[in-house]
Formats: sequence, structure tokens, C-alpha cells
Amino acid sequence: MAAFFELVKTEKHSAARAGVLHTPHGDVPTPVFMPVGTQATVKTLSPLELLEIGARIILSNTYHLFLRPGSSLIASFGGLHRFMAWPRPILTDSGGFQVFSLGHLGRVRDDGVSFRSHIDGSEHLFTPERVIAIQEELGADVIMAFDECTPYPSDLEYNRKALKRTHNWAQRCLAAQTRRDQALFGIVQGGMFPELRRESARFLTSLDFPGYAIGGLSVGEPKELSAKILEETVPLLPEGKPRYLMGVGSPEDLVEFVARGIDMFDCVLPTRVARNGALFTRHGRRNIGNASFKALDQPIDESCDCYTCRTFSAAYVHHLFRSEELLAYRLASIHNLRFMIRLMEEVRASILSGSFDRLREEFLASYTPTDQGVRLSQKAKWVEAQRRKA
Amino acid sequence: MAAFFELVKTEKHSAARAGVLHTPHGDVPTPVFMPVGTQATVKTLSPLELLEIGARIILSNTYHLFLRPGSSLIASFGGLHRFMAWPRPILTDSGGFQVFSLGHLGRVRDDGVSFRSHIDGSEHLFTPERVIAIQEELGADVIMAFDECTPYPSDLEYNRKALKRTHNWAQRCLAAQTRRDQALFGIVQGGMFPELRRESARFLTSLDFPGYAIGGLSVGEPKELSAKILEETVPLLPEGKPRYLMGVGSPEDLVEFVARGIDMFDCVLPTRVARNGALFTRHGRRNIGNASFKALDQPIDESCDCYTCRTFSAAYVHHLFRSEELLAYRLASIHNLRFMIRLMEEVRASILSGSFDRLREEFLASYTPTDQGVRLSQKAKWVEAQRRKA
Repeated sequence: MAAFFELVKTEKHSAARAGVLHTPHGDVPTPVFMPVGTQATVKTLSPLELLEIGARIILSNTYHLFLRPGSSLIASFGGLHRFMAWPRPILTDSGGFQVFSLGHLGRVRDDGVSFRSHIDGSEHLFTPERVIAIQEELGADVIMAFDECTPYPSDLEYNRKALKRTHNWAQRCLAAQTRRDQALFGIVQGGMFPELRRESARFLTSLDFPGYAIGGLSVGEPKELSAKILEETVPLLPEGKPRYLMGVGSPEDLVEFVARGIDMFDCVLPTRVARNGALFTRHGRRNIGNASFKALDQPIDESCDCYTCRTFSAAYVHHLFRSEELLAYRLASIHNLRFMIRLMEEVRASILSGSFDRLREEFLASYTPTDQGVRLSQKAKWVEAQRRKA
Repeated sequence: MAAFFELVKTEKHSAARAGVLHTPHGDVPTPVFMPVGTQATVKTLSPLELLEIGARIILSNTYHLFLRPGSSLIASFGGLHRFMAWPRPILTDSGGFQVFSLGHLGRVRDDGVSFRSHIDGSEHLFTPERVIAIQEELGADVIMAFDECTPYPSDLEYNRKALKRTHNWAQRCLAAQTRRDQALFGIVQGGMFPELRRESARFLTSLDFPGYAIGGLSVGEPKELSAKILEETVPLLPEGKPRYLMGVGSPEDLVEFVARGIDMFDCVLPTRVARNGALFTRHGRRNIGNASFKALDQPIDESCDCYTCRTFSAAYVHHLFRSEELLAYRLASIHNLRFMIRLMEEVRASILSGSFDRLREEFLASYTPTDQGVRLSQKAKWVEAQRRKA
């Protein structure tokens, strides 16, 4: 049987909800943050570490796995879970976003998107049917409909056309599905146009997907605009189905969007900035490359329960970053992912106990998103040096 | 009390021995292979992984740690064990080799070596007294005398002068030592000249070090020559003291040199080649980047008990290498180190049971050091590509 959602509690003072996504590979308490394992690996980490961090579900990318090592190869290994030795649930995206952002010469046609591989330039065509077949080969617990993600900014006329295709493709994805053990989520699009977002929510809801994603946000627009679009969209989605905000985001984003009724998140941000030395603490981001950490005989975050903070001083992690040792990127990734997952665990507990409002207020009051510990010019140099190495 | 050696058994048909090095941080059964943690980290691995691999003692480099993060900083953390969270024994080298191979403008004087940092060009002077003081700050269980490692080839006259300095420095190291919980090993030098090697062994033995290293081998000379020099030297060393062959080597080297009476080894080879995709199996090295692994639903080595082989197919590790994912270098390092450590475990058991001769013969018959799975041109390209990324 495919994954299904159980709504456990809705908060009184906001739209925040606690639930459980039941899947063939186990239960996922929501709200949940999903670490991203683009190429069948969450960068630098082993499955054992992901379990210890408390990851309940991870995301992997259809576009990347289709190109390398190939979805049919993964199918011959019994699917992605076994191939990458990850026993818990997986969600695969549809590749809709990547064919535009990574594939070269992505061309939209009414039947799909043709593109060239960013690896070897080979030509491919993604249609709704093809994308479902690939995701069935990968075998994730949750799979996504093929959609067209419009750039920001783009005009109403273009968004109207793109949305028509996205809706048509959503119907074709549903029709193409043959496996009964995968939950196919629809993706609400519509760019920055509230009327299109409402139209999309209404149309997709009529198709009765087991879950709904909101795509095309966090593509460069101001945060107020994302919040506004979300507030227009979420109330039109059925209460009993999970809501997944794609590609979001930072710790502060998660808290704010949980308050607006989102259940699921994914983002490369925590692991990507970790590899540049930017580490989350309850007081905000800190750059471990800062000289102030050179001799600090304390964990990165005293309140953190991750392996890195339980085992090593900030000075040691600083030394690893300065020495460009690969262990640095791993210890930083463990810390940032544990931070995100623990934040969601605490958010969920607070929803259940009726204290989410207070947690939200306290978290946002103490958490400063910008990196205050490092002068910008220094930081820019440091990040740049790490980037060249990473 | 400082580390001391217990000889448990000497083999009948060769000079192979089994022993135990008792240290303040636990016992080390010998023969033993020591993974190298140059910058206070065995590249890509956590201390937990090293324990799981079965590492009993690791080596770290005085030259590197002195320059970064600084030995006084490490001392302020209570020493290297706590700084890097490694609970078992550590051996530090004396920096003698590195000031020549890495430091710029290394200049030998009778009182020591002046050099410039390979990191920032700063000027430093290593004297025997300074090197002992640094190693006392680092706090390893076994520390090494400061020596001059002559290049290959170099002439008799030069080697004679260098050896005189090495012997003088050995005496000064002994006199400079203030900690009673560290075992200071002398280093036999003498280049490729048997008479100098014999002289060095006799002189250092007269100083009664708790252990002896053989330095200056594996510096580019033919293997027959290293073996010959070793055969001249080892019989002159006291039976009751441990013998450490520095910077050696490959799996086949270890087996051969155990047969010649060596107890301890260290080498970056297993982890360095691992990061290039060269993996040890009982049949020899294999390059995991080879297309023959692309779809192989078997561990890298069926007989291996490491985390990598217990968990992942060769195809998955191949995919990670092709995708240049950092987890690749880690899974490969785990495998190669476990291979070396397990080989030494088996060698020791065979010495104790009197079957080392058979193990040696069988191992060398089945193990082909060269990489037969890959055509050389392909391999060269692949290694080069990995090197650029690593």
C-alpha cells in the first residue's frame, strides 16, 4: 500500500500541524525536514550517520539518477533503497526543476521537455509518462508529478501557458502510474500570481492526489512574496493531505512556513553551507573558519546533541577546515542536519503540547540568520577558498 | 610509565615475531600497521570508524601539527589524544623527513635544520631539543628521535656526515626528554651503505632506546636493495625491543618485511590510493573506476568484513567515484585500511600458530600488486581526474 497521511493535531494560533506520513518504509512524523541525497548519497554522509542524526526521510533527484548511474541499473539492484543502503522512506522529485536549471538547452514542448545532459551532452526527452516510469524504477515511497517550474520574474501570459501544461502533465502522470506502493504528489504552480496559484490548487485538488507540493517558490523572489503566495495557496489544499514546500529552506524559513501549514521541507542549504564552514547555532549562523574559534575548547553549540558537538571542540573543527581535511565537511554536515532535524522535532513536540507559538517567537528572537562573527571581506575570501577545494 | 615491548613469539622459519607494545593508552598487538593521521585526522575518517576498522595505534606528523594548529595549542587541549578524540595509542614522527621533503629551503646545520613552512613561508629551526619539546606538547605514547634522512641516491661521504649528525642528535634527544610517559625510539640511518647501517645499529643500541626505527628506506631505491639493507640491520637490533620500519608500505611489503623481523609499519599508501579508487583485494589491487564494476552487485571483496563491503555493492562505490562524491573516498579508505589491519591480524595469528610461512606463501601467490583490471591509459586518465578533484 502506498504512503498516506494522518493528521494528528492542528495548532490554535496558527496553521501549524503535526501529523504522520505512513509509508512502506516506516512512519515519518511531520513537520519534517528531508536531507537531500542528489546522487544517491547525502553529501559526505553514510546511511548510518543519517540514522543517528534522526533523518526520517530523504530526498533524491530523478534527473541526476536517470543520467548516472541510470534508473534501470538502480532497478536491477531492487531500487534506490537497497542501492544506497538506506532503509527508511525516500522521496524522488520529478526532474522538472533540474531539466531547466541544470540540463543544457532545455526546450519545453506540450508533450514534455527535451534537454541535454549536463554530464556528457547526450540528448533526452522527459515526458510525464517517462518521468513516472523512471521514478517507478527508482522505487521511492513518494514520487512527484512532472511540472514546469517558471523562472522569476516571468509574465502572466507565460505562467498561464506553463500552468496549463503542468495541469495536463499532472493528469498524464496519474494515468501513467502502474505501481500501487508509491504515493504520487501533485505540484501546485502558478508563479507569483495569486489567481493562478488558486486555480492550480483547485484543479489539482480535484484530481485527488495523496499529497500536494508547492513548487516554484524560493526562486529568487522576496520572502514576503513567497509568504503571501503560500498564504493564498495553503487554505485551498485539503486538510487531510500532506503539504510539501519544495526547496525550502533555512532554519528560520522552516519555522515560519510550518506556521503557515506546511508539513514537509527539503533543501540543500544546510549541507551546502556546512561545506563552506557556516554552522547553525540557536543564536544564528557562525563561520567556523573565523579566528575566534581557533582555540575554543567548547563544542560548536553547547546545546547540540550531534556527534560533532558531543565529540570535538570548535577548535578541532576549525583546524580541519583550515587544513582542508575532508572530515571537516562531514562533521559540519552532521551538525547542520542534526540542527534542522532537531528543530523540526522540537517544533512538532510544541505543536502537540500547544506551545508552538512560544517556540516560534523565542526561536526567531534569538536566531540571527546573518553571520555576525566574521567580517564580510574575510568571510567572502574564506568561503571562496573553501569553494575552490570542495 | 612509558610504553614497553613484550616479545611473545618468534617464528621458526623466518625472523617474524609476534609481540605486544604496552602503552599508556592501551596495548598494541604486533606486527601492526599504523594508519597515518598527518594533520590530526586520518583523512576522511572519524575516530569511531578507526576503532571499528580495528586500528590499534595511529601515527601523526610533528612537522604538520607544529605548523598548524601549533603544538602549544594542542598542549592546551591536554594533548593530541583529546584534541582529535582518539582514545588509543599515538606515535608522532620527529619531522626529520618532512623538513626536507615539504619544508622549503631546508638547511642542515650541525645543531639542527632551518626551513620555511610550506603553508605560509615562515622561518623555523628544528633542533633535537625543540623537536622533543614539541613532541612532549603533542603527548603521543611513542615519540621519535630527530634524524637526517638522506636522499637516494647520495654518496658515502655525505651519508657518513649525515649519520654523525643523526647519532649526535639521538644523544641530544635522549638528554632533552623530560616526560617519563613517552617512549622515545631511535632511528637507524646510513643510506644504502651496509657498513653505515651496521655502525648506526650498534651505536644506537648502545644508547638503550626502548625501541628502534629503521628510516631512510622506501625513498626510491629498488625493493631488493631495501630488503638487503634490512637484512643487514635487523639482526643487530636487540630482540626484546620493537622494530619499526618507517613509511612502508604496500600489503606485499608488509608480509615480506614481517618475515624479516619488523614489528611496526606506517604508510599513507592505503588511504592515498583509496582516494584514487585503487582498492586492495586478496587478488591484488583493483580500480573501482573500471567499467567492469558499473553493475556489479557484489561487495568489492567478498571476503572482507569492513563496513563498505558489508553494506554496499561495488556498483554503488563505482557510482560514487564516477560522481566524485566525498563518500567515495571515505568508503574506499575504510576498505583499504581494514584490509591492511586485518592482514596484520592474520599474520600475527599465523605467527602464533606456527603457520606464517604458509600464509606468506599463499598471500604472495594470490596477490598481484599491479592493477590488472584496467588498461593503463584508461587508468592513468582516471587517476589523474580523481587527483584533480581530491
